Amino acid sequence: MPLGPEQQNEIASRRSETQPTRRATVAALEEILYEPFPVLDHGFVRVVDYMGDDAAVVQAARVSYGRGTKRLSQDQGLINYLMRHRHTTPFEMCEIKLHVKLPIFVARQWIRHRTASVNEYSARYSILDHEFYLPAPEHLAVQSAANRQGRGTVLDPGSAARVLELLRTDAERAYRGYVELLNEDVSGAPVDPERPGLARELARINLTLNFYTQWYWKTDLHNLMHFLSLRADSHAQYEIRAYAEVLLEVMKRWVPMTYAAFREYRMEAATISATGLAVIRRMLAGEEVTQETSRLSPREWRELMALIGR
Amino acid sequence: MPLGPEQQNEIASRRSETQPTRRATVAALEEILYEPFPVLDHGFVRVVDYMGDDAAVVQAARVSYGRGTKRLSQDQGLINYLMRHRHTTPFEMCEIKLHVKLPIFVARQWIRHRTASVNEYSARYSILDHEFYLPAPEHLAVQSAANRQGRGTVLDPGSAARVLELLRTDAERAYRGYVELLNEDVSGAPVDPERPGLARELARINLTLNFYTQWYWKTDLHNLMHFLSLRADSHAQYEIRAYAEVLLEVMKRWVPMTYAAFREYRMEAATISATGLAVIRRMLAGEEVTQETSRLSPREWRELMALIGR
Amino acid sequence: MPLGPEQQNEIASRRSETQPTRRATVAALEEILYEPFPVLDHGFVRVVDYMGDDAAVVQAARVSYGRGTKRLSQDQGLINYLMRHRHTTPFEMCEIKLHVKLPIFVARQWIRHRTASVNEYSARYSILDHEFYLPAPEHLAVQSAANRQGRGTVLDPGSAARVLELLRTDAERAYRGYVELLNEDVSGAPVDPERPGLARELARINLTLNFYTQWYWKTDLHNLMHFLSLRADSHAQYEIRAYAEVLLEVMKRWVPMTYAAFREYRMEAATISATGLAVIRRMLAGEEVTQETSRLSPREWRELMALIGR
Amino acid sequence: MPLGPEQQNEIASRRSETQPTRRATVAALEEILYEPFPVLDHGFVRVVDYMGDDAAVVQAARVSYGRGTKRLSQDQGLINYLMRHRHTTPFEMCEIKLHVKLPIFVARQWIRHRTASVNEYSARYSILDHEFYLPAPEHLAVQSAANRQGRGTVLDPGSAARVLELLRTDAERAYRGYVELLNEDVSGAPVDPERPGLARELARINLTLNFYTQWYWKTDLHNLMHFLSLRADSHAQYEIRAYAEVLLEVMKRWVPMTYAAFREYRMEAATISATGLAVIRRMLAGEEVTQETSRLSPREWRELMALIGR
Repeated sequence: MPLGPEQQNEIASRRSETQPTRRATVAALEEILYEPFPVLDHGFVRVVDYMGDDAAVVQAARVSYGRGTKRLSQDQGLINYLMRHRHTTPFEMCEIKLHVKLPIFVARQWIRHRTASVNEYSARYSILDHEFYLPAPEHLAVQSAANRQGRGTVLDPGSAARVLELLRTDAERAYRGYVELLNEDVSGAPVDPERPGLARELARINLTLNFYTQWYWKTDLHNLMHFLSLRADSHAQYEIRAYAEVLLEVMKRWVPMTYAAFREYRMEAATISATGLAVIRRMLAGEEVTQETSRLSPREWRELMALIGR
Repeated sequence: MPLGPEQQNEIASRRSETQPTRRATVAALEEILYEPFPVLDHGFVRVVDYMGDDAAVVQAARVSYGRGTKRLSQDQGLINYLMRHRHTTPFEMCEIKLHVKLPIFVARQWIRHRTASVNEYSARYSILDHEFYLPAPEHLAVQSAANRQGRGTVLDPGSAARVLELLRTDAERAYRGYVELLNEDVSGAPVDPERPGLARELARINLTLNFYTQWYWKTDLHNLMHFLSLRADSHAQYEIRAYAEVLLEVMKRWVPMTYAAFREYRMEAATISATGLAVIRRMLAGEEVTQETSRLSPREWRELMALIGR
Repeated sequence: MPLGPEQQNEIASRRSETQPTRRATVAALEEILYEPFPVLDHGFVRVVDYMGDDAAVVQAARVSYGRGTKRLSQDQGLINYLMRHRHTTPFEMCEIKLHVKLPIFVARQWIRHRTASVNEYSARYSILDHEFYLPAPEHLAVQSAANRQGRGTVLDPGSAARVLELLRTDAERAYRGYVELLNEDVSGAPVDPERPGLARELARINLTLNFYTQWYWKTDLHNLMHFLSLRADSHAQYEIRAYAEVLLEVMKRWVPMTYAAFREYRMEAATISATGLAVIRRMLAGEEVTQETSRLSPREWRELMALIGR
Repeated sequence: MPLGPEQQNEIASRRSETQPTRRATVAALEEILYEPFPVLDHGFVRVVDYMGDDAAVVQAARVSYGRGTKRLSQDQGLINYLMRHRHTTPFEMCEIKLHVKLPIFVARQWIRHRTASVNEYSARYSILDHEFYLPAPEHLAVQSAANRQGRGTVLDPGSAARVLELLRTDAERAYRGYVELLNEDVSGAPVDPERPGLARELARINLTLNFYTQWYWKTDLHNLMHFLSLRADSHAQYEIRAYAEVLLEVMKRWVPMTYAAFREYRMEAATISATGLAVIRRMLAGEEVTQETSRLSPREWRELMALIGR
């Protein structure tokens, strides 16, 4: 994520300016505003704006004239109540805007979250940077046998090196092709005046899916939590999870009460099926239950046993 | 809209606090933050939070590292371009949150705008105030003959007085019934300990549609403009238009460049049908066109002629 | 819900026509298509169209060329898997359209579900029927002490009679006022030619919230389940729950496999917090846990104990 | 788009089955149901389900008990009225579901339309086909000078051949790399048992953006028209426009009245700014207006003159 001096100046310039505001303000988030947090090998997440705080959730839930909050413990209690009972609308009252640099294949998963606003850097209009994602060796793994859409064991160093070599060579070649197709330098002038340059919207199709793109992405706190509950989950692909983990830290700074409730009632909670609940009741009543007598499938049984520490 | 002293204190208290922020800030909007603007006889609109400004639209359109803006004239030019070509996503990057007090029948129209977040004061949980909407005499009108969902000529003073008397009497009676059904005072204690009070969620069904409710409503600038283009329009019912007109003033303070573009390319612009365009071309070519030769319906013809000053 | 002969004819006429189609078709739903199911005293729900079936969920999950289904048990297994892991998008591939007649206060709760399409009968344009909701005596209850937005014990017959008398009288009076304000008969001619009629969009504000309205409402299966999980829940107000219960029956006819999975993994399942899971693990390990040692609030403790049969 | 025999059989099998239905049915759409329409070199669009017809729009607008339609001319008149006045909700009452095969870079534009349901073929789970998009020579063009995100003049045959050779070679190489990384055959067995295969979710990142993916995509008629108004427009990239043009034909079969209104009031209509309207009025009043006296920018002036045939 080495930003050029121009970009660093732009960021420093924004960080140096403060204005007085009557709005709800979160000091811990102001502290990191505009700063890029590195993710993967060339990506980043920057918070570029936000609206609201924990108190804004309380204020909306109470439809209050002022701040609407009472004692801190009461506010935490109300937020816990809203989270437990899935009263989700007060969490929509907070909003966050990010600038994200991410590989295209990650962008393709991310964009599936529809309740958000996006402005992506346009490769019809501009030229993409010479930056592509190469996994760290510890993230190169074989296809999982257990989970048809996941990773299994990590590759041995020799195999990993061969994989990286292949990925690097093909991406480099794709970018060379891209540049040759464009036939233009940074100023837009032809590199080889003897031949025409291809339209940008076409030249880009030669790039591989690990090239980086960037976008502004804005969503509300409710939808951010929905994103995090799916993408910070162990079933999510590692690369998008790396972004989700940074966003969890951002959320913790921004709305610490909501964050605590989110961990307790969503991230570390579990939904147990009707039959699963019956199994727990039977076990607590002293009955010896096995998978065969549980009426759960072998997979559901394993998952339930893992959950309840059996 | 006479707020009680407690509410005035809450508002004054919020207005008196300022914090430094690195975020985009709009002085003209800060000036009125939290202040209630009266609408109709008991309603109001208060801006309680906002995110972004005209520059944030530009910044998102350019996916920039810093503010992204250049000279003011270039920023206005870009915003005009986005508006003309319906590149709507950069306008989604600004957000506004309002506290609104409004009659239930207005709330029923307003809520049809789905891309927004709402927290309404709950009459299952709390007791509604003794406040209902009575139109000013100049807004009492007969059913329009031309427009099956509009108003025609204003009522004569005698008829208006009778209408207001009827509306007032029935609303007062409805509220008396509501209070009697609830059988509780402000503290929740029974008024008449001899008889039970009805659940709030049921008692409220006795109220008429002109009673006031209130909510927090949050939307982005793109959807705010969509709301305004429909609700500040002359076809909208007067009562919701009264709110839309206040919001136009709010928008003008908040994002003056976007506001100017919105007036030029949306509010005061017109969409002319394929046949309508052909009529204009024929007229400009010197042809004498009549409704009969225009291939427009009489109504479309009238509307087109009004638009082009014929 | 006594429909007039004209409406009965329209329904009978639609029911009598069949066409061949290549689309997915559900015989059990065809059987009841267009038929009104009574809800409350004057309301109804009619299925007026649908798209897709259980197999369409499977087909979309597999992005298949044909029907995409395999053995029935495999299809049920896949649907269960999707439901358990909140892979919700395949359920969006089925769609249902309803015609609903419902009291305005119920419509106000219903409309909060934003991911749906609605066309409501317009009281700006047309005249509302003389039909309002009166609860059956067994649904008249006092305000709940435990749940600030619910009902407690049922009213004694004498109190119930007084409540109903009040509700009836006020609604009747409101309708008389409405008719007087309109001053028009069914044909639109003035009743009293000596005085003007008030515009419909204004006259309607004299009606109470228990008057019936009607709408077409269309949503997808995923959002229908979200609606049902909130509105068929015991915390929902009885009146909207009455509609949700009819819709559960409709869903069972339409997509029986999805319905079974929905009951098992959503309706009769429970989400247990991180601390709640720890309590279960401790209990299963033989530890004696009390509310005090559980780190749960009294309320959470009670709810967890109820869930696990302690 | 050469489908394999298995896929052809699946399609033929679905096409051969018909069932009686009471639902609204459109014969012209039934005729082509499930059939793939070729788009680009390997893509297709297939209609796999639909709900509603022109009459369903009318029915919802009237909130009717039966079909709700009257004479055909009245139905067309109502649909025109709804389209002109942007009463969009009745058009949401019709729904269509497509199976689409499309290059990834087209999918990235398409997915920006958020009000739709999507199930994409998962390259985390399955292996992508050896199919990539190569433009036909007549679609290879230089970067436009006038429009920074468009195409200019078509390449000469020699340049086109070199471009295609480069695109083909790089895509072939990318696919070879993909297969080598996967190291598995169709059955999932390793090709070279001596070395491990990379997880599918990683191997795919070596593919270029012109590889084909496929998805089920479902939207309502209102949002389909929004998609078409942007993507069948001359400013859209050719490749997505090719899909939009097929969808226009599908729409014409499905809802011919709505299609006619859409062409007249949207596709071939134009929105003219406040200043543009003033120019027209001045011209019609006989004034000689030039760009300089028009208060329009040169670009807006050119566009307006083109529109009104000057």
